[in-house]
Amino acid sequence: MTDTSEPSPLSDDFHVFDTTLRDGAQREGINLTVADKLTIARHLDDFGVGFIEGGWPGANPRDTEFFQRVQEEVPFRHAQLVAFGATRKAGVRVEDDPQVTALLDSKAPVVTLVAKSHVRHVELALRTTLDENLAMIRDTVAYLREQGRRVFLDCEHFFDGYALDADYAKQVVRTASEAGADVVVLCDTNGGMLPAQVTAVVRTVLADTGARLGIHAQDDTGCAVANTLAAVDAGATHVQCTANGYGERVGNSNLFPVVAALELKYGRRVLPEGKLAETTRISHAIAEVVNLTPSTHQPYVGLSAFAHKAGLHASAIKVDPDLYQHIDPELVGNTMRMLVSDMAGRASIELKGKELGIDLGGDRELVGRVVERVKERELAGYTYEAADASFELLLREEVQGRPLRYFTVESWRAIVEDRPDGTHANEATVKLWAKGERIVATAEGNGPVNALDRALRVALEQIYPQLAQMELVDYKVRILEGALGTGSITRVLVSTGDGRGEWSTVGVAENVIAASWQALDDAYAYGLMRAGVAPQD
Amino acid sequence: MTDTSEPSPLSDDFHVFDTTLRDGAQREGINLTVADKLTIARHLDDFGVGFIEGGWPGANPRDTEFFQRVQEEVPFRHAQLVAFGATRKAGVRVEDDPQVTALLDSKAPVVTLVAKSHVRHVELALRTTLDENLAMIRDTVAYLREQGRRVFLDCEHFFDGYALDADYAKQVVRTASEAGADVVVLCDTNGGMLPAQVTAVVRTVLADTGARLGIHAQDDTGCAVANTLAAVDAGATHVQCTANGYGERVGNSNLFPVVAALELKYGRRVLPEGKLAETTRISHAIAEVVNLTPSTHQPYVGLSAFAHKAGLHASAIKVDPDLYQHIDPELVGNTMRMLVSDMAGRASIELKGKELGIDLGGDRELVGRVVERVKERELAGYTYEAADASFELLLREEVQGRPLRYFTVESWRAIVEDRPDGTHANEATVKLWAKGERIVATAEGNGPVNALDRALRVALEQIYPQLAQMELVDYKVRILEGALGTGSITRVLVSTGDGRGEWSTVGVAENVIAASWQALDDAYAYGLMRAGVAPQD
Repeated sequence: MTDTSEPSPLSDDFHVFDTTLRDGAQREGINLTVADKLTIARHLDDFGVGFIEGGWPGANPRDTEFFQRVQEEVPFRHAQLVAFGATRKAGVRVEDDPQVTALLDSKAPVVTLVAKSHVRHVELALRTTLDENLAMIRDTVAYLREQGRRVFLDCEHFFDGYALDADYAKQVVRTASEAGADVVVLCDTNGGMLPAQVTAVVRTVLADTGARLGIHAQDDTGCAVANTLAAVDAGATHVQCTANGYGERVGNSNLFPVVAALELKYGRRVLPEGKLAETTRISHAIAEVVNLTPSTHQPYVGLSAFAHKAGLHASAIKVDPDLYQHIDPELVGNTMRMLVSDMAGRASIELKGKELGIDLGGDRELVGRVVERVKERELAGYTYEAADASFELLLREEVQGRPLRYFTVESWRAIVEDRPDGTHANEATVKLWAKGERIVATAEGNGPVNALDRALRVALEQIYPQLAQMELVDYKVRILEGALGTGSITRVLVSTGDGRGEWSTVGVAENVIAASWQALDDAYAYGLMRAGVAPQD
Repeated sequence: MTDTSEPSPLSDDFHVFDTTLRDGAQREGINLTVADKLTIARHLDDFGVGFIEGGWPGANPRDTEFFQRVQEEVPFRHAQLVAFGATRKAGVRVEDDPQVTALLDSKAPVVTLVAKSHVRHVELALRTTLDENLAMIRDTVAYLREQGRRVFLDCEHFFDGYALDADYAKQVVRTASEAGADVVVLCDTNGGMLPAQVTAVVRTVLADTGARLGIHAQDDTGCAVANTLAAVDAGATHVQCTANGYGERVGNSNLFPVVAALELKYGRRVLPEGKLAETTRISHAIAEVVNLTPSTHQPYVGLSAFAHKAGLHASAIKVDPDLYQHIDPELVGNTMRMLVSDMAGRASIELKGKELGIDLGGDRELVGRVVERVKERELAGYTYEAADASFELLLREEVQGRPLRYFTVESWRAIVEDRPDGTHANEATVKLWAKGERIVATAEGNGPVNALDRALRVALEQIYPQLAQMELVDYKVRILEGALGTGSITRVLVSTGDGRGEWSTVGVAENVIAASWQALDDAYAYGLMRAGVAPQD
């Protein structure tokens, strides 16, 4: 069907099923483009989940486009691609239901069908009979199986439905399983369950139906992770989660703590070798794509997750850190941080220097100076974790005792002018000195930052032709300090590429133009250094 | 001892014990003044918790001052005040330990003592013998009881200690209980536990010791709320929590979902009559005091906790909302919200209109036009779910057949100029017509958007003095299509307030200034409408 989806190297006995791109996208404030979805799919496959539910093909043009492009552009190494859709409409032959046809057209090898298992929902939302609902499930599962698809069935509102009419809910499970669904997923769609209840229901349903069961938990009681594990305790072998717990209302069961608990607390291999240590990186990368600040207090992956306020236990922590943390943070790619002592800071600066091939030679005074500057600048809003190139420039500046300078800016100016026809004129002027020459350049752009970027390039390319290879590939703005209106501090992250690689730089200022300027300034300085151009004195 | 602390009107059979002011204050980024602590104590007492742990008197001057002032300035109506401290030092008589004396001096009627119950921690952190540790517990509990204090004992690292040496851990519980501690609290200090484990351990310890047990859970596995409830399932009758889950590393067990689950899922009265409906307000009020943005995705109390997006469900939600939410949001003082998004169809537009008090009167053609416009604009990058006010303006425009216009802009211009000293000049000029007058205004600001905002206000306040009440409270920028450099589309979300409420507007353009302008334009139009000002023709 598709040669891009190879089976996961892990056994099929236990499924880590990700639905960030479908259910996670329901989170208030998330609005994913097709390009965002492709990037997230790449990260999830890299992490090693077994299944990636990509959306509902046919329901909107964006999802249809995603299914087409992901199979052409993203060769999965671990995951299988899953399309989501509903059982056939009441009173319609399955072959004639365009929504079911769209599932086949998506060419996804696996389909998750959503079905009702709650008698009131059948009557009220589907407006059909209980028997017809079972027929809809039976027909759709069987038809997709005949067409060579693997089928999972999501029982929407299962737990509430079970409380109201357990027999019917179980009948749905049996019907799906007998028709050929590989897994029947019990969904706590309203998210009102607690772990002990989940364990009891899953255990009974498993005993009474013999079907392979999965769990899909929402976090409305703050127990989605626990409910997911409670279902596993009772015998479920398929867990549906989303990255960072994104999802409707409060959110879904969070992929990262679920996977970490399964691997580290249950001792169950659910990711390919070595991937658990990527957890923190993948979590943060996906947060960047959806443009939400990574939660500093997220279990396992948050910046604060292994941060200790020293003091009382400082000496004991040094002797035996394992007494003060539930796991070694490196297992999930995070690090222990001591909030008072700068020991951790020094060590990581030294490590980072080594990584960049800059020998700090155990120079305590130098390392101390770098730690201080990083602390001071991060306090002011800079973030070096996401701006490696700006950090390297800072480090080299401290090592060499002077900034790496390729040009000296005299001044710049950007003007945005609204025209009566509703269009805008964006113009920027840059005045700078490079190799003893004073250069003045003006350029227009589709925005003030774009105009500044162009003016800077026009000015510099006369002196440094290497700039022609470089181009801006990403640009992100974040307003720090949420409650200050337009008077807040602005942080800009810029990624620049030269065809051989990319580097990221950061700027922070009281306004977006000035912050962008700083990031551009660093970006070109770093690019020239990378190109082997000697700096000016 | 103190006449400010009266017993809770609820029975003593079950304790809701809050430690926001002690353990919650350990959260990275929280730094409470005494005034902050007094305000939080007032909110917690108002909410109706049974116990408020105020800090560690004697450990730092701030906590000592708090205990003095809270008993003078905050007459508790429901809670009892609790002081936190350690058992006596090894080899010191309890009467001679200044830290124990400080607990008595605090005049708090209840004391929580922290003690070690993990053999390695006794050896490594206390550097004493296992027997002396038991003597320290016995002596300190007995002494405080003799002095008329009620005593609870926190067993630090209990669960890890129990795993290593269950006998010793249980000996600690027995020793404290026999010496007169009313409750022995099992603490998952490293936060590594999962609910099934907690239930098993609490059940065994309860059976083996007969002591009254409490639970103190940290959220490192994302299961603190579930672990707290798991302990209650096993017979614990005292739960230690913090408001919004504030606490060290990932945080503590969150008071609000724990209390809501106990009241609504367990049917257990743990708050005074009518107080559960204050949950959302109290949660947000405390977030304001500690200066953290309230989490929009917190269970029960988050802005998104009862927000529905999927168009799929909207028609059925109209018929029976209880099928789509696990509790009635009003029970916890929250409200259901319908989000408008391109996933939504006609039903959610109609519902949204109803919510806004705009009668669409089943006008299919009108609703269809609104759906089309929303789809078209969301495709262009607008997002109405986060911009209620812009959506309402769009809706009214369609209903009335013309835009709601308070002013007509002729043109505007913004200039950002870098000065040789590294500072920036930001200047904006606005030319507009309002009530037949042409107005030109220029203003400076700390950024181009701020300058534009000021110029617009200078121009409009002459005509609409109501604008003086309005101020920008939040400003968010999102670059859409991540991979296009500074040529991307920019979306700006602005929140504006007038002291009585807030509203959000959106702007989308090829540059940040133009997008901001649109959002500001909508923000002031909506604010004037809200203020009852009649639009111009």
